[in-house]
Amino acid sequence: MSELPVIRLLPKAKPQAIRHGFPWVYSNEVVTDRRTRALAPGTLAVLEDGDRRPMGLVGVTPASKIIGRMLDRDPKATIDRAWFEDRLTRALAHRDRIYDGPFYRLVHAEADGLPGVVIDRFGDAAVIQPNAAWADARLDDLVAALVAVTGVTTVLKSASGRARSLEGLDDADTVLLGDVGGPVPVQMNGATYMADLTGGQKTGLFYDQRDNHRAVARLARGGQVLDVFSHVGGFALAALAAGAETGLAVDGSAAALDLARAGAEASGTADRFDTRQGDAFEVLEALAAEGRTFDVVICDPPAFAPAKQAREAGLRAYERVAKLAAPLVADGGYLTLCSCSHAVDLASFRNASARGIGKGGRRGQIVRTGFAGPDHPLLPQLAESGYLKALTFRL
Amino acid sequence: MSELPVIRLLPKAKPQAIRHGFPWVYSNEVVTDRRTRALAPGTLAVLEDGDRRPMGLVGVTPASKIIGRMLDRDPKATIDRAWFEDRLTRALAHRDRIYDGPFYRLVHAEADGLPGVVIDRFGDAAVIQPNAAWADARLDDLVAALVAVTGVTTVLKSASGRARSLEGLDDADTVLLGDVGGPVPVQMNGATYMADLTGGQKTGLFYDQRDNHRAVARLARGGQVLDVFSHVGGFALAALAAGAETGLAVDGSAAALDLARAGAEASGTADRFDTRQGDAFEVLEALAAEGRTFDVVICDPPAFAPAKQAREAGLRAYERVAKLAAPLVADGGYLTLCSCSHAVDLASFRNASARGIGKGGRRGQIVRTGFAGPDHPLLPQLAESGYLKALTFRL
Repeated sequence: MSELPVIRLLPKAKPQAIRHGFPWVYSNEVVTDRRTRALAPGTLAVLEDGDRRPMGLVGVTPASKIIGRMLDRDPKATIDRAWFEDRLTRALAHRDRIYDGPFYRLVHAEADGLPGVVIDRFGDAAVIQPNAAWADARLDDLVAALVAVTGVTTVLKSASGRARSLEGLDDADTVLLGDVGGPVPVQMNGATYMADLTGGQKTGLFYDQRDNHRAVARLARGGQVLDVFSHVGGFALAALAAGAETGLAVDGSAAALDLARAGAEASGTADRFDTRQGDAFEVLEALAAEGRTFDVVICDPPAFAPAKQAREAGLRAYERVAKLAAPLVADGGYLTLCSCSHAVDLASFRNASARGIGKGGRRGQIVRTGFAGPDHPLLPQLAESGYLKALTFRL
Repeated sequence: MSELPVIRLLPKAKPQAIRHGFPWVYSNEVVTDRRTRALAPGTLAVLEDGDRRPMGLVGVTPASKIIGRMLDRDPKATIDRAWFEDRLTRALAHRDRIYDGPFYRLVHAEADGLPGVVIDRFGDAAVIQPNAAWADARLDDLVAALVAVTGVTTVLKSASGRARSLEGLDDADTVLLGDVGGPVPVQMNGATYMADLTGGQKTGLFYDQRDNHRAVARLARGGQVLDVFSHVGGFALAALAAGAETGLAVDGSAAALDLARAGAEASGTADRFDTRQGDAFEVLEALAAEGRTFDVVICDPPAFAPAKQAREAGLRAYERVAKLAAPLVADGGYLTLCSCSHAVDLASFRNASARGIGKGGRRGQIVRTGFAGPDHPLLPQLAESGYLKALTFRL
């Protein structure tokens, strides 16, 4: 322990939040002398309070606004393969309890005790996003622990996370272990999805929407479903599996829609499934011009407000989506609007959505408010950052 | 139309919110002349804006802070049996789509177009809470419409709603139609609950927690479950049906626990079910003294903060529940904390819960945030009043 560097909170910094579980140390809270600034990104250090009492072991990224991430409350902890195995075992026990098959987000960063690390599991394959320098520097131990705990035979590194550049990390996706074949079939909510682990957005499939897929599918029995910003068919395929009469998936990506069609084939619902490639806003306008209506419409766009500066523009974009989608919903039908923007809170998103529905000439009642599924846990201290929100309106 | 009295917004009142769907007219927004004050509670009136343009038809309660409730945007609407049938048909279509059997909240007040009116359905029986004067005065039409639309043969009036005294209404429960036999068996989430429509809290069963019951039950397979403030066994019976090893229900009411035991018998899980009657706080302390732990603990107390004045005391009570419950949760187990207090928002409840867990010597991650089920819709304009919140922590 004594060999580790020390970073010390300023006298004015309040250690209570960190003591109560807040996992981050901001650079303006610590004494940043020349020695601290010279630490290599990912170095381990002992965090001390203003009175030099050790508070825990942190991973340090000197150039980042989040200069330290709490790895262990025990400042004498050793961050080795056994330490990773312990965290992964605990994370796995939770997912094993919830899900029938090995398809889920296995590690959701801070809440699973691995700050900045995201791991999605697809059966025998796993995709790691090591979005913090401390983890990127210890990838060998993490992969070895992952193999030991889960038995996965293929491990990919996804370096597409926005946070990586803040941490000074590269953006090179690599295969860390095993071989990647074609898309992996994933069973969720009675449907089969095709997850392309190498070519897709994020890690090829959005596990966070699983519970929202199911809740919306329950409304879709016997109905016509429109799934806008569909990616690989998330809502549409679940709705068809639950008995929807037809499903139309809209996305800008031909590759995503190819996977959606392959999923519909694998689900045995291809005869009721259709796709339309194009800009979502343009397709919504075109469907209105064609006089089309649907019993269930879902719009699950990419983050329109990924950061605070984009908040106002993002809210306008969400309002516009709602305005264009509302007229396509049959009387008494359902409109589900989603936001995965960290910078847009639930109340603002709800207001923007209701305003858009009003401008679209409709009124609605909210029948459900959903968030990311239970394999995406949150620290209470960071719960405001729960990014995914799904509102279902009945119009 | 011209025969109806008129109530008029003050020039300073802003009609936009009402135009955009806000359903209430506050007494300080309208011209309250002698004629308005003399209207009988429940009188229908045409609401006009400051420029004498009609905005819709409202039910008036002159002595209430909410002096008018918007019944119809059409000022010429006739509030008769056919009008009620139309609203009920629309409400029923939504529930029919979601649920396999006729057990649900059929009407959730403003969001279902019937301001102040709550109707719970238990198969062939229904319980009406006419918590606004306009509806109480038109109960015959409402009951006739309810029978026509749903075919129920028994209709009860529950007058226990707190809002009734604000509306100047009596508190006499009555049987409006048919006969009430013994408790009604209700199937939810694979369990059978016994709903006593005449002797229970509220209307004998809490439909609002159904989705939360299911989500928690999913975590309970093979585990020991403690259900505190259990009422008729809400969480415990669902968990047992989902494969929990044991369920212990705690409640202050012997009658509620009798119904819970009858439900366990009917569910075929009585051999794994136990009850303990007593003050919940005392039972929590006693269980800790006995060294008991559980894999899943749920605390679903009555509203500790039913009104704004009780907010701070209510938050302290929620914190105390969390503090007493947390030590009873096994390592890696789950703690679900619920609040049905209007006056406590989600963030405050989350903070109080996390603080209590910390004072109980534990840390937790939030794995789920749930609200009332889809048979409890909300107007977007009143969505902040979504009263029910259920947080599941993993400790």
